[in-house]
Amino acid sequence: MSRLLEKHGIQVGRMTPGATNSITDVDGVMVGHTTLIEGENVRTGATAIVPHSGNIFHEKVKAGALTINGFGKAVGLPQINEFGMIETPILLTNTLNVGKVSDALISWVLPHYQRLDCSITSLNPIVAECNDSYLNDIQGRHVEKEHVFHALDTASADPVAEGVVGAGTGVSAFEFKSGIGSASRIVRLDGENYTVGVLSLPNFGRREELVIKGVPIGRELRDYEREPHDGEEGSIVIVIATDLPLSHRQLVRIAKRASFGIARTGGICHNGSGEFVISFTTANKVPHDPKRIFLEERRLNDAHSVINAVFQATIEAVEESILSALFSAETMVGIDGHRRGALPIPEVLSFLKASGHSYS
Amino acid sequence: MSRLLEKHGIQVGRMTPGATNSITDVDGVMVGHTTLIEGENVRTGATAIVPHSGNIFHEKVKAGALTINGFGKAVGLPQINEFGMIETPILLTNTLNVGKVSDALISWVLPHYQRLDCSITSLNPIVAECNDSYLNDIQGRHVEKEHVFHALDTASADPVAEGVVGAGTGVSAFEFKSGIGSASRIVRLDGENYTVGVLSLPNFGRREELVIKGVPIGRELRDYEREPHDGEEGSIVIVIATDLPLSHRQLVRIAKRASFGIARTGGICHNGSGEFVISFTTANKVPHDPKRIFLEERRLNDAHSVINAVFQATIEAVEESILSALFSAETMVGIDGHRRGALPIPEVLSFLKASGHSYS
Amino acid sequence: MSRLLEKHGIQVGRMTPGATNSITDVDGVMVGHTTLIEGENVRTGATAIVPHSGNIFHEKVKAGALTINGFGKAVGLPQINEFGMIETPILLTNTLNVGKVSDALISWVLPHYQRLDCSITSLNPIVAECNDSYLNDIQGRHVEKEHVFHALDTASADPVAEGVVGAGTGVSAFEFKSGIGSASRIVRLDGENYTVGVLSLPNFGRREELVIKGVPIGRELRDYEREPHDGEEGSIVIVIATDLPLSHRQLVRIAKRASFGIARTGGICHNGSGEFVISFTTANKVPHDPKRIFLEERRLNDAHSVINAVFQATIEAVEESILSALFSAETMVGIDGHRRGALPIPEVLSFLKASGHSYS
Amino acid sequence: MSRLLEKHGIQVGRMTPGATNSITDVDGVMVGHTTLIEGENVRTGATAIVPHSGNIFHEKVKAGALTINGFGKAVGLPQINEFGMIETPILLTNTLNVGKVSDALISWVLPHYQRLDCSITSLNPIVAECNDSYLNDIQGRHVEKEHVFHALDTASADPVAEGVVGAGTGVSAFEFKSGIGSASRIVRLDGENYTVGVLSLPNFGRREELVIKGVPIGRELRDYEREPHDGEEGSIVIVIATDLPLSHRQLVRIAKRASFGIARTGGICHNGSGEFVISFTTANKVPHDPKRIFLEERRLNDAHSVINAVFQATIEAVEESILSALFSAETMVGIDGHRRGALPIPEVLSFLKASGHSYS
Repeated sequence: MSRLLEKHGIQVGRMTPGATNSITDVDGVMVGHTTLIEGENVRTGATAIVPHSGNIFHEKVKAGALTINGFGKAVGLPQINEFGMIETPILLTNTLNVGKVSDALISWVLPHYQRLDCSITSLNPIVAECNDSYLNDIQGRHVEKEHVFHALDTASADPVAEGVVGAGTGVSAFEFKSGIGSASRIVRLDGENYTVGVLSLPNFGRREELVIKGVPIGRELRDYEREPHDGEEGSIVIVIATDLPLSHRQLVRIAKRASFGIARTGGICHNGSGEFVISFTTANKVPHDPKRIFLEERRLNDAHSVINAVFQATIEAVEESILSALFSAETMVGIDGHRRGALPIPEVLSFLKASGHSYS
Repeated sequence: MSRLLEKHGIQVGRMTPGATNSITDVDGVMVGHTTLIEGENVRTGATAIVPHSGNIFHEKVKAGALTINGFGKAVGLPQINEFGMIETPILLTNTLNVGKVSDALISWVLPHYQRLDCSITSLNPIVAECNDSYLNDIQGRHVEKEHVFHALDTASADPVAEGVVGAGTGVSAFEFKSGIGSASRIVRLDGENYTVGVLSLPNFGRREELVIKGVPIGRELRDYEREPHDGEEGSIVIVIATDLPLSHRQLVRIAKRASFGIARTGGICHNGSGEFVISFTTANKVPHDPKRIFLEERRLNDAHSVINAVFQATIEAVEESILSALFSAETMVGIDGHRRGALPIPEVLSFLKASGHSYS
Repeated sequence: MSRLLEKHGIQVGRMTPGATNSITDVDGVMVGHTTLIEGENVRTGATAIVPHSGNIFHEKVKAGALTINGFGKAVGLPQINEFGMIETPILLTNTLNVGKVSDALISWVLPHYQRLDCSITSLNPIVAECNDSYLNDIQGRHVEKEHVFHALDTASADPVAEGVVGAGTGVSAFEFKSGIGSASRIVRLDGENYTVGVLSLPNFGRREELVIKGVPIGRELRDYEREPHDGEEGSIVIVIATDLPLSHRQLVRIAKRASFGIARTGGICHNGSGEFVISFTTANKVPHDPKRIFLEERRLNDAHSVINAVFQATIEAVEESILSALFSAETMVGIDGHRRGALPIPEVLSFLKASGHSYS
Repeated sequence: MSRLLEKHGIQVGRMTPGATNSITDVDGVMVGHTTLIEGENVRTGATAIVPHSGNIFHEKVKAGALTINGFGKAVGLPQINEFGMIETPILLTNTLNVGKVSDALISWVLPHYQRLDCSITSLNPIVAECNDSYLNDIQGRHVEKEHVFHALDTASADPVAEGVVGAGTGVSAFEFKSGIGSASRIVRLDGENYTVGVLSLPNFGRREELVIKGVPIGRELRDYEREPHDGEEGSIVIVIATDLPLSHRQLVRIAKRASFGIARTGGICHNGSGEFVISFTTANKVPHDPKRIFLEERRLNDAHSVINAVFQATIEAVEESILSALFSAETMVGIDGHRRGALPIPEVLSFLKASGHSYS
């Protein structure tokens, strides 16, 4: 479903998307999903973002992490910001499944990344979550070890499957069905093309807040197939990948711009929202090797305004990834007969068309 | 010029403004300006926000501070976040004038707040700034002690003068003339009305970024009376006042929502932008009295979603304050013959009307 | 083994300890341990700190969290600092067991704290860890659900068992056997006694760094039964409990003083050390009740120096808890035949006596 | 007075000091003082730390900043942590003089660093302070522009003058006369020598808290020439310089270790203490040049424990710099006849000798 917005003639922002307009446009990045839809109550899953195809523990990836609103259960963030690196894939799942998934991630890493000369006795698994309890039996913690393994083992560099897949299986945004969304932008610097890719898991927002390209779609669709709200306020997890050589400080600066992309869709960062951003670069990988006392690195100079293009790319990709999740997701019925309807695309297109400013 | 947007039929957001739709709707808050327009080169000033009319050093005000993007020279923030209080009025001025203004603020505080039984040997002046060098001889540091005194001595609870006044005299936003803006919103909780008021000093944004009520006005006016950009990327200072009883942690949470208001006007938080938010409440003032070992306080319970209304109020008031600064400011010519044109209101209204969604 | 230092005539600091000189001197606080010593390789466990005997989800506890050095895998910290509260007991365990233990904590909380009128679909388990891989088969993740349940179910307000118990079973400090340590101090304010209690899990430090009451014991014992160092640099987890009415901001301020207690034992906060502090107060519990819009609270006034006594109490209790863990722990042999010897108390007492300044 | 502790046979820590055991051992770093002792009331001054002898605005210096306890008025810190750089010398002065000194610093920078092709319209002056009001007429703000210029113009790479000079003129620590202190340590990495240098301005601590090399000297000298305490709780400013190639994240990590050096002298970080640390490296200077899109940098790899030597060096140099300030300062009488006695060195040496562990 990649490039779905483009197919509907909707262009988000001013910058050029990458080849597939998804996070896997960043060379090396892979994504895998396990989707759990079983019986009437299980609507959940796991999504793995694998920064590169090598041994991530031994070729660590520079990263930054940011908490926008901390009502969330993400694990692994303090070490990201102390060391400026991640050493495992990133897993997304539901709120109450974080413990099991982080344990499963360890179980996967040990045989895959451990080497004979280096026993892994300390490992910082990265797991973030959204609350899918409106559709899913969340207390059941149905994401098991084999589901995590499947997401990791099937991760590929293909265009990201979006919508009702993986950790996005049971989520909602703006009281429409949501899911996984992804987008990318090209940044041209010093004669080279670099890519900023985003994968997001939007699970936030009241109906009337939704804005698409400035048009208050949520207000127009206020009463469209609306069910009583469930009280949980949702969350959003945003993963930003790039091949630009950025330092930890710069990766955190990029992460800070995610709020601006969320705001463009109408989000206001609710009280009970867990909003976490993890950003990483595939440039300047750090070897797990005590003999390497110094590292030679090339990095972007942000003493001047050149980094603004990276900020703009991030904001646009975050915005588009959220919209793409909504456009890709189909209606779902889940636990207790709860129903979450898909965004009615024809109506949306009609409202966009009726607005004076072109949406194409 | 208060309520100017309303006069043009523009309603920002969904919530009800306070009586004058400015920060002084928060009972006790006073604002004063000194506007310096001299010769061809001096286009600057000072704005004082006085949290209450009493002795602020001896009746300190609970406060929080947040740095969105730290390319700025605001002073006093570390102590705000350690002690959760401010003990002086807040001054706004130009970037290179911060030192002089903070010294002048001390000079004003000593005779006003010192008591015979309590010599003031430590004081944390709060000063924030924007860069007005496109129109102003900023190296001249023309804001002198008497100008600071004037802003403080003339501060009043009247509706805030907006546009080309005080620290807003020389600033620009979206390559239009900007200035001081203000707005307020009423939050009704537990049968009582509370007020959230905002005063902002918007000095950021490229022309094409400007969005008004979702309509890409900046793109439409891309070439309207546009001068070459000057390179400086500007800043925004936002002061949030309320009479809601909030803790320091909650005041910082409110401050975090300012980004969402900025984003609604099209802001992307440029690399070279100093974006600082200072929030305070007039409730639960803290006596400077070592004999008061414990304090009895009433505060909002944010374990649940009731605080969302305060977030919404903050976002709307920030958004409207920025737009109000633009709508209130007149064209100005300054140093080196630089000219910064006012927002062409008829054209803006016309574009808003042409958009499919009503702006009234 | 509580009050062990006192029995040896060693007084740490100047303030008076609570009745049992352990964290359970704070009224309501309970501690439970599960100690796993099986075969030659299993040397680990879990420790539960239960803030009060009621329903913690429905009577949440005000809390703060601080990362000193973030090379650690603690979970739950972002939400502590956003909401200023904890809603589950705190569990300590080994580094690779955090996922399983946090999942088990959810399994324990659901039947204990869920009420018919309030389904728990979001929960923030608090788990911190130390790396016990020198003595323990850490990859085995031997702490299972029943072990977590046992620690929680046997938690009591008795004086804390110290040394080789619970999460302290396999840890080392200064290359001596370490374990769980605890201490408390009385702070008298406004005519009332309040208590600051600390439980720590010290697992850090090279031999030569150890200092006891200013005496460089580690230097003296540099070669005492020393085994080759294992490379892992350890960590320390510190839990601070009090019945003083403190705000979230103040609880974080208290947590910041833990570093000074660590430093007094010679700690230097190594690169690979996960140093996390969680502080909470049993005063001003927050009901999980959306109808309570406002809360009435009494809190310490820290505009003046009265809080210094609380800082001093914290520093002394942290220092003593670390030393108490060392004094309480017995020699242990574990995985790969690794042996970690106990602190030789007679030699230590002899060095202390030889120093010119009295240690009693 | 450099190497004064060594002359008394006191060795602080285990590592080797640099050639002069002061911050100017870091190649390029220069220090200058202006000492103001006039009449009976003026006891203050300014100290300039100049990171290198070139144009600092155009060859910016990588830096980090940390607030330990934020009861202080330091200016410039937010921008340090956003951009990871400083662009002016660092000035130290008294609490109420910060505004005047930061303005004077701008006045000095403009003619010195501005180039014809690059007008300076934005500048982030770095100024920190301690409260010298026990001896000085602090409300008089006696440090004028010419005093700042003198400190900057006379800055040299000579061994730092310590004790009652510059910003240290009127300060106290542990209720003894204090002043400026400095120290350095050599770190050998990968076959090369690097230097960590510290300059501190200690102005904190109650008498009974002072510890020297673990010996509770302050307790022994509790009543030695003690005057009634003045209520102000003091502060400490610490500047760390190095030639090691460290990133911003690493410079902040180094800064975090300053607490451990303070703690070794008995400091407990009082409520009213402004404790700020600024760290910078002379390696990898950043050109103020928009055409430099990417930078090539060499940096320390802190994925492993090699950075511990830098932490140790920092802690030792901070500890020694504080002690050196005390050992170097002479008794002073100031405002209101207040007298602050020097540390009685013979008594101190005698107590050190009486302690069982050697101090040499």
